[in-house]
Amino acid sequence: MKILLIGAAGTLGAAVHTTLADRGHDVLTVGRSSGDLRYDITDPAQVTELYDRAGRVDAVACAAGDVPWRAITELTAGDYLDAVRGKVLSQVELVRQGVGRIAERGSFTLITGVLAREPVPTGSAASLANGAVEAFVRAAAIEIAPQRVNAVSPTVFTESLDDYGDFFPGMEPVDLAKAARAYVRSVEGAQTGRVFVP
Amino acid sequence: MKILLIGAAGTLGAAVHTTLADRGHDVLTVGRSSGDLRYDITDPAQVTELYDRAGRVDAVACAAGDVPWRAITELTAGDYLDAVRGKVLSQVELVRQGVGRIAERGSFTLITGVLAREPVPTGSAASLANGAVEAFVRAAAIEIAPQRVNAVSPTVFTESLDDYGDFFPGMEPVDLAKAARAYVRSVEGAQTGRVFVP
Repeated sequence: MKILLIGAAGTLGAAVHTTLADRGHDVLTVGRSSGDLRYDITDPAQVTELYDRAGRVDAVACAAGDVPWRAITELTAGDYLDAVRGKVLSQVELVRQGVGRIAERGSFTLITGVLAREPVPTGSAASLANGAVEAFVRAAAIEIAPQRVNAVSPTVFTESLDDYGDFFPGMEPVDLAKAARAYVRSVEGAQTGRVFVP
Repeated sequence: MKILLIGAAGTLGAAVHTTLADRGHDVLTVGRSSGDLRYDITDPAQVTELYDRAGRVDAVACAAGDVPWRAITELTAGDYLDAVRGKVLSQVELVRQGVGRIAERGSFTLITGVLAREPVPTGSAASLANGAVEAFVRAAAIEIAPQRVNAVSPTVFTESLDDYGDFFPGMEPVDLAKAARAYVRSVEGAQTGRVFVP
């Protein structure tokens, strides 16, 4: 398949890239400052340009999403809006604009995260963003069939424990390779409207 | 208790108002164009003014949230942003700004809805908004204790079936009085981080 992978240079994105390429897929990498195509998907106009440049693809996979981390009392109204723009509306645009562009039975795989269901202090903007994307995926799935849309919702990565482990005390980490396989399941499988927890 | 009720003039808000008043609470009603206090909570500056005017309250209850209803292919990027401003960031502001203002053991009760878990066609923006608020509630709860925050997530109201029943085929409606009791449970009870499904 020809797969558009957004956020391919990130920790998860790089693992997804390797995994999909190893399975013989033609992966077109997208990033703000690296990759085959350079676009910022938080700008709806750049999502349009991205699809114009990419041409027909069979699947869109996203591993990109930025949200601010701070205590509720330290987050501003603008921070919450940034979280929505950085992880929710960006991914909604991939689907909204992609429906008329990708293959008839193509798929979208979006990124969320454990904070949708298991919160941690300073993570309220991330929780909000993840919950929004997961509910959107369930809703979009019933409108876009036979195209499909799923979310991958990993917890902290084993490989990132040194940097982020303190935010997730006692929670089981997940290996990047396992998280990447959830993308394979979404892209190559037949399910839709699912939140895959690797 | 002294309770600030936002959206008191709406279908649900009116029922919540009656139910809370019948239980002896002092309810201060808030709306854009009616109520004891007239403010638009989608504007963070007006939320500040609202709290300035209201003084110390024991609980904040919200029954206000507007989202556009259209097919994904008919919704614009701006429509999704409107949904976020109209139902998510507005309620986040009530909590974010309210933490330092309401009673030490006060509570926030926010409104979501069944579409967070059971989608219907043309409801993707509503699903997104509801999922965002529910995840935010779980996250906020662990930061603001001993203050509390919950969501009430009703399905279509029995009293609204003539207008909206066609959107929810075969789904059990809920009586407004039962939905209003979920607000009582949140306000007078001791639980936090819960999504009450009346």
